[in-house]
Amino acid sequence: MITLWHCRDARSFRPLWALEELGIRYDLKLLPFPPRFHAREYLDQNPLGTIPLLVDGDTRMTESAAMIEYLSMRHGEGRLSVRPEEPGYGAYLNGLVYGEATLTFPQTLVLRYARLEPEERRQPQVAEDYARWFLARLEGLEAILETSAFVAADRFTGADISVAYALLLARALKLDGELPPAVADYWTRMSQRPAFASAKAAQSQAPASV
Amino acid sequence: MITLWHCRDARSFRPLWALEELGIRYDLKLLPFPPRFHAREYLDQNPLGTIPLLVDGDTRMTESAAMIEYLSMRHGEGRLSVRPEEPGYGAYLNGLVYGEATLTFPQTLVLRYARLEPEERRQPQVAEDYARWFLARLEGLEAILETSAFVAADRFTGADISVAYALLLARALKLDGELPPAVADYWTRMSQRPAFASAKAAQSQAPASV
Repeated sequence: MITLWHCRDARSFRPLWALEELGIRYDLKLLPFPPRFHAREYLDQNPLGTIPLLVDGDTRMTESAAMIEYLSMRHGEGRLSVRPEEPGYGAYLNGLVYGEATLTFPQTLVLRYARLEPEERRQPQVAEDYARWFLARLEGLEAILETSAFVAADRFTGADISVAYALLLARALKLDGELPPAVADYWTRMSQRPAFASAKAAQSQAPASV
Repeated sequence: MITLWHCRDARSFRPLWALEELGIRYDLKLLPFPPRFHAREYLDQNPLGTIPLLVDGDTRMTESAAMIEYLSMRHGEGRLSVRPEEPGYGAYLNGLVYGEATLTFPQTLVLRYARLEPEERRQPQVAEDYARWFLARLEGLEAILETSAFVAADRFTGADISVAYALLLARALKLDGELPPAVADYWTRMSQRPAFASAKAAQSQAPASV
């Protein structure tokens, strides 16, 4: 049985959504955010206290974008993946990493320095720098979505999960008012997928646990 | 012919190193950093002005960690990859993304707010926050390297290129004095690989171009 440690709407939403898309059974461990302060027992599982953690037998993973590809290839017959021989392979791999490294990390600066830090440590300039940085980087995505309904290979893949999660986070941070038009439409479509709704339901029904 | 747009020791060093490991021919376009200010013509190739850009026929990629896997699977018979049926598959995918999303991005905050920004926009607190953040995240890597010479599958893979690049950047930012011992040894070994030296030679010999 695959176990996923998760906080609501955190990056761990990516593997949760992938599990639902692939119809894989899993055990969901829901933690309060941030677990390093509110669920100290979690440090026995992951000493860094970061979310997500996915455990599958001897495999332990901490990177949400990597988990999508892992679940697809190991347990989903590659149904969320693009294969090396397909034309969209480069776009797929690129989208998988871009969703996290280019679109999610900058938003964590906004989260940290505009919201989570105590008043005296907040940094409005940094929050603004990275809000603008995030919105500027969406131009590459907008160009892709002007000619395709998906990030890669003209079908729904793990790259869409990686990228659409970044848009879910943008919504939470109220950056979504400035999304370019094709990106805004794409977000609406992605968030209407049945497996997205199942993942949302799973995280609201799960009891808090450590 | 594969074309790689590169700035010395920037993230584009990852695909450059991978190309050398795999023995693939390539055309290297060396740009001054940051190209969006010093090589405006590059914006015709990549409107965001970010580095790297890899072009291979119809495939255009901007994420350095994704390029490693792409080059290995498309042009290198998977020689830098771990396959889904191998025990180290999860660790491999995790390391590939971890090198960028967890170990490199935080260092770009140090670079930006301690060095690149004009004096009046520097943010010593933020640079310090993310220097500490980076060093704390190395603990997960230290634990892996205490029992293995490599990030995944007990052999050299693309995950090592992704992670070791982050250590090259740490050296440039003078964060390498605080590396934990197994990580410091690992960096020495990785930087002694012949293909690492070839990539370093390629970037010092290439003429500046746009």
